[in-house]
Amino acid sequence: MKISELGEFGLINLLAEMAYGGKNDKVSAWQKLIRGIGDDTTAWQADSSVQLATVDSLIQDIHFSLDITSWEELGWRAMAANLSDIAAMGGSPEYALVSLALPGSSEVEDVTSLYKGMLNLTDKFGVALVGGDTSSAPLLVINITIIGSTIGKDRVMLTRSAAEPGDKVAVTGYLGASGAGLEMLTKKLQLDSESASYLREAFLKPYPRVTEGQLLLKQGVKTAIDISDGLIADLKHICQASQVSASINIDSVPVHSSVRTNFADKALELALSGGEDYELLFTASADIIDKVRADVSCPITVIGDIISDTKSEVALVNKDGKPVKIAKFGWEHFTKK
Amino acid sequence: MKISELGEFGLINLLAEMAYGGKNDKVSAWQKLIRGIGDDTTAWQADSSVQLATVDSLIQDIHFSLDITSWEELGWRAMAANLSDIAAMGGSPEYALVSLALPGSSEVEDVTSLYKGMLNLTDKFGVALVGGDTSSAPLLVINITIIGSTIGKDRVMLTRSAAEPGDKVAVTGYLGASGAGLEMLTKKLQLDSESASYLREAFLKPYPRVTEGQLLLKQGVKTAIDISDGLIADLKHICQASQVSASINIDSVPVHSSVRTNFADKALELALSGGEDYELLFTASADIIDKVRADVSCPITVIGDIISDTKSEVALVNKDGKPVKIAKFGWEHFTKK
Repeated sequence: MKISELGEFGLINLLAEMAYGGKNDKVSAWQKLIRGIGDDTTAWQADSSVQLATVDSLIQDIHFSLDITSWEELGWRAMAANLSDIAAMGGSPEYALVSLALPGSSEVEDVTSLYKGMLNLTDKFGVALVGGDTSSAPLLVINITIIGSTIGKDRVMLTRSAAEPGDKVAVTGYLGASGAGLEMLTKKLQLDSESASYLREAFLKPYPRVTEGQLLLKQGVKTAIDISDGLIADLKHICQASQVSASINIDSVPVHSSVRTNFADKALELALSGGEDYELLFTASADIIDKVRADVSCPITVIGDIISDTKSEVALVNKDGKPVKIAKFGWEHFTKK
Repeated sequence: MKISELGEFGLINLLAEMAYGGKNDKVSAWQKLIRGIGDDTTAWQADSSVQLATVDSLIQDIHFSLDITSWEELGWRAMAANLSDIAAMGGSPEYALVSLALPGSSEVEDVTSLYKGMLNLTDKFGVALVGGDTSSAPLLVINITIIGSTIGKDRVMLTRSAAEPGDKVAVTGYLGASGAGLEMLTKKLQLDSESASYLREAFLKPYPRVTEGQLLLKQGVKTAIDISDGLIADLKHICQASQVSASINIDSVPVHSSVRTNFADKALELALSGGEDYELLFTASADIIDKVRADVSCPITVIGDIISDTKSEVALVNKDGKPVKIAKFGWEHFTKK
């Protein structure tokens, strides 16, 4: 069987089964493990806190194109995607290791710009970029590992598996702008300068919600994921991990005005399945969501409900409660391009 | 300027300067940092131990060829290379995160074989393979992050920067067999079955010296590196980090008999600059080396001396003390192929 027939998540499940098949409770590393494959980061018990680690590879012409991205923006975006995984655990990022593979014909100035983009972002979060390796390759491959910790002394963190029927589903910020930015850049759409600037930044310089993730945790939220694959796809990850289903009111999804204005009918699809918005998607009681809203500086929008149904489905309804269908549900490697 | 003009180590130095330019002593992550770019792993102070982290990318047709490697061997070798970095610090590996990028046309069975090769090795060292990601790519890219810790409660670890004039230079095991194995496989040399089997395993299934690294540390060794780039190149890394020079007696370099027998004149070059033997190269007093020899189960051979000269040069002499020159000094990405 080909990997393309199995799909990204099929492959991840298969590899996770293999890895956990070797689990040995007599081994210290396994004893201390709290979260493994299947959450935004790995987590294990250290002496007085929980260590978090996440790794991500970005491959040229799969995850990014140098035709529409400057090297500096690419560095920022690669680092942001990884920091966002720590944000989704409510953790604090500490160390970054970068492994770069690239052609020898690359310009030194481009590579230092790439690094500058990364450092601009690590600086903002007190992250020390401290190691990694470099090697030659026919195309650019950026691999980033972030190691961090949870902020409290307990084993408290945001996970994908704590959603409960009765929880509201909510998101930080606005959705769809990253996908709209990608569309604008690849199709060379001429938009008004304010929209163009907002959408470009949404796609190329997303700001990971590290602070917000920590505040969610502080206010009692237990379940979160960052929106990288797309709202519906990522909500499905929560549903699968929590053994629940969800319903989304599409009319309440916070689509940014730049997206609504310029992408008309496609705006909703971009918000539901565009991916890479790096906003946090979380579930909690209405009371807790009110406390979160009072504590964070970005918009918090309730967009649906967690329901008691172990099929792990995400249903879409409009403001009148009528079911809605859309074509594309989000990004998955291998099977969708 | 092109990266190929700067070279791998020039690039690493440049990026390290940029990263450390952003160092901020008011930031906790920087305060706790003990070793950054420029050693086998990154190291920082945790509550009661030192955390170690290392990352490595293997790119198809740069670091490996599927023409001469089975997927299972490739998995083992990729994991071994990373564990070897932890061995070179005298540390204990704990967690592995694997990021795989590969074409959708890959066979699922091949990918599970790759994983099996990794798991066979992680099992032996009590390492939990706990996370990572997968994505599509036009070629196979394997990125492994290993996180571990030092074995004592103090900040004690093997580093590249503690070599002192008067130290002897020593190595574990035999050298040249990995390079000879590569040569045998790429040139399809027909060797006797015992040599063929030994050299194939030396190249494709190296056994990282994790146990030996810990015993070196226990016996008082302070300086070590694993031989990945080649004996001379890696000794040069020690000399540069320690601000010393070294002299090697080429007649005492432990070249395995399979290499001597089958590669005649080239045997020494393979041992000096073949690379990827994943043996430990270390420096210590003659007394400490005797203690190490009594404690480990592999051969320990003294091959030279650390000398007081800040030029960081590695001189080669024969058993009569006469200078020797060789053409190739080891592997460096971008500039040498």
